[in-house]
Amino acid sequence: MSEFDLINQYFKHTSVKRDDVLLGIGDDCAILSPPAGKKLAVSTDTLISGVHFPESTRAEDVGYKSLAVNLSDLAAMGAEPAWVSLAMSLPEADKIWLQGFMQGFNELAEKYNIALIGGDTTQGPLSITINITGFLHSDHVLKRTSAKVGDRICVTGCIGDASIGLNVILNNIDHHLSDQQLTYCKKRLNRPQPRIEAGKLLAPFSLAAIDISDGLLADLKHICKASAVGAILYIDDLPVSEALLRYYSNEPDWQSILTSGDDYELCFTCPDEQFNDVQKVMKLNNIDVFCIGEIKDTSGITCLLNNQPLHLEQTGYNHF
Amino acid sequence: MSEFDLINQYFKHTSVKRDDVLLGIGDDCAILSPPAGKKLAVSTDTLISGVHFPESTRAEDVGYKSLAVNLSDLAAMGAEPAWVSLAMSLPEADKIWLQGFMQGFNELAEKYNIALIGGDTTQGPLSITINITGFLHSDHVLKRTSAKVGDRICVTGCIGDASIGLNVILNNIDHHLSDQQLTYCKKRLNRPQPRIEAGKLLAPFSLAAIDISDGLLADLKHICKASAVGAILYIDDLPVSEALLRYYSNEPDWQSILTSGDDYELCFTCPDEQFNDVQKVMKLNNIDVFCIGEIKDTSGITCLLNNQPLHLEQTGYNHF
Repeated sequence: MSEFDLINQYFKHTSVKRDDVLLGIGDDCAILSPPAGKKLAVSTDTLISGVHFPESTRAEDVGYKSLAVNLSDLAAMGAEPAWVSLAMSLPEADKIWLQGFMQGFNELAEKYNIALIGGDTTQGPLSITINITGFLHSDHVLKRTSAKVGDRICVTGCIGDASIGLNVILNNIDHHLSDQQLTYCKKRLNRPQPRIEAGKLLAPFSLAAIDISDGLLADLKHICKASAVGAILYIDDLPVSEALLRYYSNEPDWQSILTSGDDYELCFTCPDEQFNDVQKVMKLNNIDVFCIGEIKDTSGITCLLNNQPLHLEQTGYNHF
Repeated sequence: MSEFDLINQYFKHTSVKRDDVLLGIGDDCAILSPPAGKKLAVSTDTLISGVHFPESTRAEDVGYKSLAVNLSDLAAMGAEPAWVSLAMSLPEADKIWLQGFMQGFNELAEKYNIALIGGDTTQGPLSITINITGFLHSDHVLKRTSAKVGDRICVTGCIGDASIGLNVILNNIDHHLSDQQLTYCKKRLNRPQPRIEAGKLLAPFSLAAIDISDGLLADLKHICKASAVGAILYIDDLPVSEALLRYYSNEPDWQSILTSGDDYELCFTCPDEQFNDVQKVMKLNNIDVFCIGEIKDTSGITCLLNNQPLHLEQTGYNHF
């Protein structure tokens, strides 16, 4: 099977058609017509087998997650997804694997009406690089540089579930989770819900935001560094699932929870005077908001548990 | 050295600044302002060490070529380059290698005023995936589907030099090239000149075009297939360099020359009645045009050498 057969069979005829894609897969470039007067948000993420997902991950989940983590970057800017390019390195032209991959990928592409506009397929160890473009409908953007001293620190959902899913899969350890709870944690790992809607609702407020991919501590640190501020995290206020409490027998391993990443919730900062409006618009759209800390003029991030400082290694995943 | 140190040191502060890049590297997405009323051309290409370039290739040449082959795709649509994303998988955080890579990359980025807007850096076998965006200034696009029976088939420069460079490097064979000729062939392999200017000049003529990356035969076949036509190639009319004639002692290996690829010249088709105008505008801009064949209503591509059919395996590189 040639590269061109692969393209024709799995990539060329995807179900999402958009009027702004004037020429799709099959030429040297795609030709696109951006909406008049709108800004574009563009992000690139690579996922490597054995690094960004366990080698045992089902093809459907790899396809879904590859797109989801890229969408999460758009969410963190408040952008609406539109076009995606897919570059894959594959050990072999495995039809069943590719079918599964594209099924997971297309599930999410269809949900958000994202057109696959191009890519490249090469032979090599399994890795996926996605380049995604979205449109900004507001003049405001959720920049990491916008945090101000006194802002609340908020997240859109539970932290730590994906790390439990990963722990159980990789280490096959004895856990106390019910089948349902285990399924939930694995789903949080393999099928994260990019917070696109939340990001679009937050964008007009011009807040600082980031998606939690490297772990809450590392990602909040990016906001703090970009905004030249510090932060206090109230660990007691972190939203955690029943599955997490059960897994840790009520003594959570905060080091793991706060640094393992793969949560794909949004973390954003919000001035007190805007918080009621933010909360109102989010509630109207059934999106949770949890206040978990405060931006400070100190340097670094202080974690408080029961009003006592908790010392954690503030690192996320490092490739090198 | 962390991924973020790498980004800060080698990627964040590149020399090309563009007014249409409202937010560059350092947030979840880049924010871009596309020019009013213009269409975008987007392409993605992956280069893998040992597949797309010999493992011994200098870092500077890898950086240059990675961008060049992507620019070549823009050239084949007649687009003007603007923004690029760079995803790299690196075996290790080798500062000297990265400096070299970015030197070669930036050389070409500066020449064409292309802003590096984002990317991703992961640990793994050396591979580079680039996503490039250009603007179309004409309502016309150089599509593969535009070839018509009777059109001339043209190329913008010599074919086969890069394949000689590759042969010499990989097989260390006895060649009869002068130092200057060898340098020329290696340069054609490692430092291809993307035909951006030629593509922009051709775009208003609405011709069929492709860049020759997989070998002239394979790439012309793409045009023929997309346009549902056939072709005759007059091998005697192919532009070849003195280095090539010397290398083959005047008996060129047409199989290798026509299928090895990496030429990065444009191949385009042109109706007779437009050819004078095309030739005039290209000559004014010091760009060569060579007529090497004709579009036919037969199927497939017939190669003629001294008016005799020449049977060649019509394949380019296949990854699987």
